[in-house]
Amino acid sequence: MSGASKPRLRSSPRTSRASTRRTQILRRAGELFDSHGVAETSIEEIAAAVGVKREAVYYYFTDKVEILIEIILPESISLDIGLKRLAELELPVRDKLVLAVENHIYRFNPNYFEMVITVRRLGRGKPDARIAGLLDVWRAYQARWIALIREGQARGDISETLDPRITAYAILGMCNSPAIWFRPTGPNSLENLAENLVRLVLDGALARD
Amino acid sequence: MSGASKPRLRSSPRTSRASTRRTQILRRAGELFDSHGVAETSIEEIAAAVGVKREAVYYYFTDKVEILIEIILPESISLDIGLKRLAELELPVRDKLVLAVENHIYRFNPNYFEMVITVRRLGRGKPDARIAGLLDVWRAYQARWIALIREGQARGDISETLDPRITAYAILGMCNSPAIWFRPTGPNSLENLAENLVRLVLDGALARD
Repeated sequence: MSGASKPRLRSSPRTSRASTRRTQILRRAGELFDSHGVAETSIEEIAAAVGVKREAVYYYFTDKVEILIEIILPESISLDIGLKRLAELELPVRDKLVLAVENHIYRFNPNYFEMVITVRRLGRGKPDARIAGLLDVWRAYQARWIALIREGQARGDISETLDPRITAYAILGMCNSPAIWFRPTGPNSLENLAENLVRLVLDGALARD
Repeated sequence: MSGASKPRLRSSPRTSRASTRRTQILRRAGELFDSHGVAETSIEEIAAAVGVKREAVYYYFTDKVEILIEIILPESISLDIGLKRLAELELPVRDKLVLAVENHIYRFNPNYFEMVITVRRLGRGKPDARIAGLLDVWRAYQARWIALIREGQARGDISETLDPRITAYAILGMCNSPAIWFRPTGPNSLENLAENLVRLVLDGALARD
């Protein structure tokens, strides 16, 4: 390779401007999804929020589903990778459970529920490889949670009377619910929230004598 | 009162037909909200599903919000009354907590999340007395849950290290989440689900020695 050739990994000014525009579109779309809802937000409104024509949005994204997926897929993948890594650690299951709840809570996304509902509904329609890919990541993540509960039961750390699937889903439901009621600017910090949920998941609400 | 006068409380055939039509509209609207989403369902589609003209739907309901409220408000009120009654019982808080979780789970509505999200978004728009009324019921219900947790802490039954508000909301989040993942026709019955959630809420996931 000659020293004069442009390094391949360095982005040209053009690429960098394009990447900024893409990011702007994703950010404004995310805000509109939050305030007006995914269903009620049109490509026109996203374009107006960015200050461009709708054609400019279509230059980067095929449709609204692609924007939605581009927001939620990287989050979902990093959630799953985080759980995969901590599940492999040589730790008591109790500690893994704490880390797993924290891994989930610290990736807090207030739009979570609506995006899930939207993606699930879209998933019921005609087959779409992008939605199928996202649903696969979610299924892998849920399966990893169920495996963690099962591992804990096999080692005697987690109560055998609990159904692994219901337990995994119930913990996830509990950890997802702050998307509806929690505001990090409110009386409780995210750390406070995580600490409380960890305690509730491990020991339940009853006082221990 | 003369014996010949028509009893006031007995509905005329006309009233009874009207009440059937209303019920039909509510049922079909609920089905469409479930399969297509609240936002994507129009009054026209509801009318078509019932087999009437859109004017017939407007004869009974001002708009889609009124249909939505008419589905969700009675459910919400009965949820709240159920909790109010059991909270007044002379029972240990542990037992009240079991009954409170069951009260919530047995009123399972798979449309719950989307309706909540829709109502919350509508609530952020211009003031609407119907939505405000529904939000009031939800707030009263949540306040009752927080009061139950506080009562348990005061009596030494519930762990003092838990924040009452986070705990109440987290338990509700856990009990609401089956709306997304639970199907009563699946491998687990509703009783099975309720039993597992009760155990998790009271004692957490860890095995007790």
